[in-house]
Amino acid sequence: MTKKKTTFNISKTGNFSEWYSEILNKAEIVDLRYGVKGFVVIRPWGARIIEKMYRIYESALRCTGHEAAVFPAVIPEKNFKRESSHIEGFAPEVFWLDKKQGEDRLALRPTSETAFYEMYNLWIRSYRDLPMKIYQRANVFRNETKATRPLIRSREFHWIETHNAFATKKDAEEQVQDDIRMTEEIMHNIFGVPFLPMRRPQWDKFPGAEYTIGSDSIMPDGKIIQQPSTHLISQHFVKAFDVKFVDEREKEKTPWLTCYGPCMSRILSSVLSIHGDDNGLVLPYTLTPIQVVVIPFYNDKSKKINEAVKNIKTNLLNEYIDVKIDDSDKRPGEKFFFWEMKGVPFRIEIGDKELENKTVSIFIRDIRKKVNVSIDDLTESVKNLGAEYDERLLARANEFFSDKIVDCKNKVDIKIVLDSGKIARFNFCSSEKEGENCAEFVEKELQARVMGTRADINEKAKGNCVICGKKAKVVVYAGKSY
Amino acid sequence: MTKKKTTFNISKTGNFSEWYSEILNKAEIVDLRYGVKGFVVIRPWGARIIEKMYRIYESALRCTGHEAAVFPAVIPEKNFKRESSHIEGFAPEVFWLDKKQGEDRLALRPTSETAFYEMYNLWIRSYRDLPMKIYQRANVFRNETKATRPLIRSREFHWIETHNAFATKKDAEEQVQDDIRMTEEIMHNIFGVPFLPMRRPQWDKFPGAEYTIGSDSIMPDGKIIQQPSTHLISQHFVKAFDVKFVDEREKEKTPWLTCYGPCMSRILSSVLSIHGDDNGLVLPYTLTPIQVVVIPFYNDKSKKINEAVKNIKTNLLNEYIDVKIDDSDKRPGEKFFFWEMKGVPFRIEIGDKELENKTVSIFIRDIRKKVNVSIDDLTESVKNLGAEYDERLLARANEFFSDKIVDCKNKVDIKIVLDSGKIARFNFCSSEKEGENCAEFVEKELQARVMGTRADINEKAKGNCVICGKKAKVVVYAGKSY
Repeated sequence: MTKKKTTFNISKTGNFSEWYSEILNKAEIVDLRYGVKGFVVIRPWGARIIEKMYRIYESALRCTGHEAAVFPAVIPEKNFKRESSHIEGFAPEVFWLDKKQGEDRLALRPTSETAFYEMYNLWIRSYRDLPMKIYQRANVFRNETKATRPLIRSREFHWIETHNAFATKKDAEEQVQDDIRMTEEIMHNIFGVPFLPMRRPQWDKFPGAEYTIGSDSIMPDGKIIQQPSTHLISQHFVKAFDVKFVDEREKEKTPWLTCYGPCMSRILSSVLSIHGDDNGLVLPYTLTPIQVVVIPFYNDKSKKINEAVKNIKTNLLNEYIDVKIDDSDKRPGEKFFFWEMKGVPFRIEIGDKELENKTVSIFIRDIRKKVNVSIDDLTESVKNLGAEYDERLLARANEFFSDKIVDCKNKVDIKIVLDSGKIARFNFCSSEKEGENCAEFVEKELQARVMGTRADINEKAKGNCVICGKKAKVVVYAGKSY
Repeated sequence: MTKKKTTFNISKTGNFSEWYSEILNKAEIVDLRYGVKGFVVIRPWGARIIEKMYRIYESALRCTGHEAAVFPAVIPEKNFKRESSHIEGFAPEVFWLDKKQGEDRLALRPTSETAFYEMYNLWIRSYRDLPMKIYQRANVFRNETKATRPLIRSREFHWIETHNAFATKKDAEEQVQDDIRMTEEIMHNIFGVPFLPMRRPQWDKFPGAEYTIGSDSIMPDGKIIQQPSTHLISQHFVKAFDVKFVDEREKEKTPWLTCYGPCMSRILSSVLSIHGDDNGLVLPYTLTPIQVVVIPFYNDKSKKINEAVKNIKTNLLNEYIDVKIDDSDKRPGEKFFFWEMKGVPFRIEIGDKELENKTVSIFIRDIRKKVNVSIDDLTESVKNLGAEYDERLLARANEFFSDKIVDCKNKVDIKIVLDSGKIARFNFCSSEKEGENCAEFVEKELQARVMGTRADINEKAKGNCVICGKKAKVVVYAGKSY
């Protein structure tokens, strides 16, 4: 008699869209049934990953001299309107509160420049106050008109926003580079999400920025997903809020501002999508809510097993390893499936035989293989296996990403590359205003977005724009996006 | 020549209101100049204390089996209206979003029962799903009609809300007791804020609760401040959301729900007010953003001093002690004043003499005394002094609280007690509906609030209600509140 085995069993590469919806549901990451378009409930398994992401990001921000603050979630309309391109860019997406009698109309923050700068006007007086580097973790709101997608494009999302002020443009631009490095060190190296740092074309920068550098990752279906952006704020924006300081020689100057916005809920969507497989989630050891699940097999000597399990738990917890004992009355197969689908890196089974041999086997989620480990060395082994686990996930993600960029000589090439779920790289007339027509062509005719030019390396255009045929000034990348 | 010493120097007991506003400003806890009534900016010094409070609370919640989740900040009007007393209680305080065409009107959450229960209707199926214990850290919004006060009564505040479901009323009531214990263990024992757990009279319970137990603390001006409440939700509320489960015998039942709402921003106001003194803030060692400030005195041998300071910093950080080196170019007196006013528990000065003697003196903020400590034992000493520091703060807070309750035999007594900034305890007709008239008398004639009856001990009434003269059923407490 063979029992039907319950497995997740959806092909991630074959049907990513179904895979993504199903895993969010089955692994209890989010619940889409809240009943308001674009607002989801983040369930414990998702919330705990996000919390770990926040802690890693926040501690890195503190190490780089940022201080936490908590700003109001509402922004008065008058602040919002001070900088014309900012309000123009955000107005269609703003949720407004019902106006109360005699009070300003209030916006739910879509981002908080206009809240921070109101205070920077008061807080920044002298060069001694600079640099001022403040961040907040916050929920922000955008009334998306496009179709929403859980974690990818929501009407409420959960991010960190840093707002920094510097005495010189040079300092500010160094911060922009630091921000890119932080994305690299955290999102890429720790969370395992590879990306391209892209300097956005003029027509696609943050409303109110002098320039914007986005970080574009790619999903298993070949769609581009924009991850943290960092912006050099325009002097016009800074002046609109009358932010000034007096320098060493008592001269009044305008500071240079930057902002950076890593969005935890959105990065989570990349983490889930990039590492997962047909059996469900695969989560980085560093981010998973449970790192080790222990499944005891009881029998008449269950007291001894209980003791051993308790010891293992204590030893692991003492080393800050998140461990769960699953002694529920489900069948073993059900338990195996469940924790595998949830993406728990290590499963330890323990019964008579294991106790006798003082050895347990550890099932390793990503490679689905078992290794034998002495019970006495368990904690040390788990730590080592954990480090190897994350290295493996990162290497695999890098490999997935490595062949995604394809050089294209003409429009047909671009179309083929985009249709195969890759990113097209090609010569392009300009990322200044005069290139916008060609970008519109790419958007309308090829259903893709011109992501911009590389911000980390200098790529020189040779030849003509593959769209309009004029002399190319830049090499751009384009991809399909959500 | 004597220099004028800059000090905070506002009498906390003499003029609490001025003390409170000034210290919020000078210690950079909050900034009131954001320009929207009841919305304040929490500055880094306040934000870091709040973050520490969150971490302590959240880790205690996890230890007691609660899981984190993240719910939307908006609640559709239709959810909100399902339970009549809930909407009636909250309606005047709700911020509504501008209605979008074809969509439900959305409320900014004043509290999230009606968001959670919408999902509990879907998540709770069987007794196996119970208990369900979920919390979120969240910003909530109330359009306060009364005067707002920073951190005490704001239109946006930062709290944790737990929403738990149980199979039986007994289990739910045990949770209510656990919640009170958590308030005791964290807010009282760790943060040093004493309180009275009070069962609210029927007319003052949470809208939609069967009963509410609040925890009332007292401010230096004798005003009562309500800290975390815990509620047993009424069966009517649960049924309005059609939350049901099937028990072991396949019988359909209604679960019992509880909720608990410790508000970090509000608890912060008590922490600041209770421990502070005329020189500024005094913060619990456990909560302060900086636990030790080191002030180096440089001279020609500054290299050696630099090395020593760096060593001290590393040693303290290795033991998770938050340390700051103040090597700014301010005068020593300014530095002393500044860190004293900010409430940093320990200040270490280090110069030639200290290096030579391998001994530093530690200035202890609350008692304003110095102790000498060997540099080699510094880390261990700081830890011990830190534990003693918090014990001392707690003992002092308890002492402040200990004489605050005074028995009253008549209305004149009550008035005198209230006017002296204390809490009146007296016989009262009833905390059920029929006592509301007498409570209204207390409110109108004595400008005080009937806080309810003790939830932790059983106090039996003997004699008659001091307000109406009818037979007293309960002993109540009353105090002035904001």
